[in-house]
Amino acid sequence: MRVGFYLMLITMFTDCKDATSSAPSDATEGLLAIKEQGSFFVGGSVKTAPGVFDPIAHGFFNPSSQASEGQTLHGDHAYVFYQVPADAREHPIVMWHGYGQFSKTWETTPDGREGFQNIFLRRNWPVYVLDQPRRGRAGRSSEPVTIDARPSDQLWFGIFRLGVYPDFYPGVQFKQDAETVDQYFRQITPDIGPLDIDLNVAAVIELLERTGPSILMTHSHSGGMGWLTALRSDKVAGIVCFEPGSNFPFPEDKVPEPINYLGGVLSARGVPDADFTRLTKIPIVIYYGDNIPREPSGKPGEEQWTAALAMAEKWRDAVNDRGGDVSLVYLPDVGITGNTHFPFSDLNNLEIADLVSNWLAEKKL
Amino acid sequence: MRVGFYLMLITMFTDCKDATSSAPSDATEGLLAIKEQGSFFVGGSVKTAPGVFDPIAHGFFNPSSQASEGQTLHGDHAYVFYQVPADAREHPIVMWHGYGQFSKTWETTPDGREGFQNIFLRRNWPVYVLDQPRRGRAGRSSEPVTIDARPSDQLWFGIFRLGVYPDFYPGVQFKQDAETVDQYFRQITPDIGPLDIDLNVAAVIELLERTGPSILMTHSHSGGMGWLTALRSDKVAGIVCFEPGSNFPFPEDKVPEPINYLGGVLSARGVPDADFTRLTKIPIVIYYGDNIPREPSGKPGEEQWTAALAMAEKWRDAVNDRGGDVSLVYLPDVGITGNTHFPFSDLNNLEIADLVSNWLAEKKL
Repeated sequence: MRVGFYLMLITMFTDCKDATSSAPSDATEGLLAIKEQGSFFVGGSVKTAPGVFDPIAHGFFNPSSQASEGQTLHGDHAYVFYQVPADAREHPIVMWHGYGQFSKTWETTPDGREGFQNIFLRRNWPVYVLDQPRRGRAGRSSEPVTIDARPSDQLWFGIFRLGVYPDFYPGVQFKQDAETVDQYFRQITPDIGPLDIDLNVAAVIELLERTGPSILMTHSHSGGMGWLTALRSDKVAGIVCFEPGSNFPFPEDKVPEPINYLGGVLSARGVPDADFTRLTKIPIVIYYGDNIPREPSGKPGEEQWTAALAMAEKWRDAVNDRGGDVSLVYLPDVGITGNTHFPFSDLNNLEIADLVSNWLAEKKL
Repeated sequence: MRVGFYLMLITMFTDCKDATSSAPSDATEGLLAIKEQGSFFVGGSVKTAPGVFDPIAHGFFNPSSQASEGQTLHGDHAYVFYQVPADAREHPIVMWHGYGQFSKTWETTPDGREGFQNIFLRRNWPVYVLDQPRRGRAGRSSEPVTIDARPSDQLWFGIFRLGVYPDFYPGVQFKQDAETVDQYFRQITPDIGPLDIDLNVAAVIELLERTGPSILMTHSHSGGMGWLTALRSDKVAGIVCFEPGSNFPFPEDKVPEPINYLGGVLSARGVPDADFTRLTKIPIVIYYGDNIPREPSGKPGEEQWTAALAMAEKWRDAVNDRGGDVSLVYLPDVGITGNTHFPFSDLNNLEIADLVSNWLAEKKL
């Protein structure tokens, strides 16, 4: 009898979805029907100290003199929290945060609205949010680290393109009250170990082996790591990337010149032709927000993205020249203005989600 | 029309709950109906570096030479993920992890079953899982730290009472396959800043101001911090504590002698009488697992808990002597054997959840 009940319930949720699918933008209310939710670690390493562990002599906790002889440390894994909705679509969405951030990126927005985690659950996607190795809930590193706790909020205010500190950009899609700014800055979190791109990519590849073919949703620093993942995994069904900033892979004989910007230089990566070809087999969409001048502006928070956008265009062309399917959307070009480096949590994030939904539908994902 | 649909759905879930409430132990299947879920930061501090931030000169990212002049760091907060089920009970349950752990403690068990997060959601409790300041998703500390990445898994194997390494206790409620052990060790995570009990308690008190009167569910190190929270907050409606290990508060003139054990000493805290009285106003239940000898065994993983259990008994008596309502359950005394330091994720965690449910019902919470 209970089975019958749940079958009826699933049917009702399906009906509900159909009834509202013509107006997804307002769908942030009502029940979330979750078929399954949970968490696990994936990837990682095991480090073993020399010697033999003695459970009597070494079995008590003393932070200052604790012996590690013969003991292991399980670390360097990614952490994943997943939810599968009642009437789940085929492909999960795997959401991967950017630099200095963790899974919070996709959750409740700094001003308290629903983020992409909930929005795409409501649109019937299984959603996996991950913390990459040595970040957030994946906090145990096999290598030591010193975290200097150096204040940097204002640096990120600029790089994340809220404005040129202390001024917000006019029309920026960000609620400027004190509580929102406070929550936003608290999303920043340090590396809890050396940043290791190969380690991160390896963990996500292993995650994809578990999820099966999935949409990879990336942001900023994970944008580049997402390309590297797709080079090595056949489980990437498509990529939705927000504001990739680095690690663009090109065929070895077609690596473009590095692009200089105020405070840095953006270099591309060369990869073997056979690897590069994999990027032409999946649909990819890239979105950039607003306030990215096409020419160097003298403002370092902007110039980094002027360089990234220029490199992304070269990369789009390189993949498409080989028969790929990369779309690059600079949001102001389609009439959407004021977005920051975090379009998925900006005030208009439902509009952005609609763009993504439409693209996914178009690509039959 | 959509409102009508959801009302009907809520009614159906209510019916479903009523239909299964006589047999909660098998309720780990079927849909979770979530009315609301999200995350936020609470508590914390803001540190400001001297000087003036220059968005041009200091606005680019350079980890080795980045200037912090005039910048802020928002840190020392707790992170909270919450879910409110469709037919929610009055009081939320706030779940607070122990030492070396984070919110994962309450999520999927190491062997892949549902943890207390899901189990109590299914029993219609709003569930708030937190990462205390400088742990897990609350990773930004205002104070620097060096993390030494010293192997310590086998130490915790003993202290968490899986056995005396490398042997598991006979009959232990823990699945002993390699994958489970691997996931279990990966739950261990370091402090990402100096451990500060007052800071942790302050953040949880602020959380309770947001949730309103709540059941505080604590474990091990948060057991003691939970008592300290209840001393200072009027929003603790009751406490369910698993295996408290330290920070037992007694009236200043009734502080018991410290208890020595192999590798350490357990001291109690003295607090003013007026504060202590608050502990007598709320129902409290404490559970300890198995394999805690009443006399020192010469095994440090056990002796720490021999001391804790003895102190907990003194504390129970001290609170009850003043008219309080503290129950202390050593699980083998009620015929439940094999539990480790983590009864809520052990193989019999549904049986443990039933104990908790019955206690909550008895206390009309």
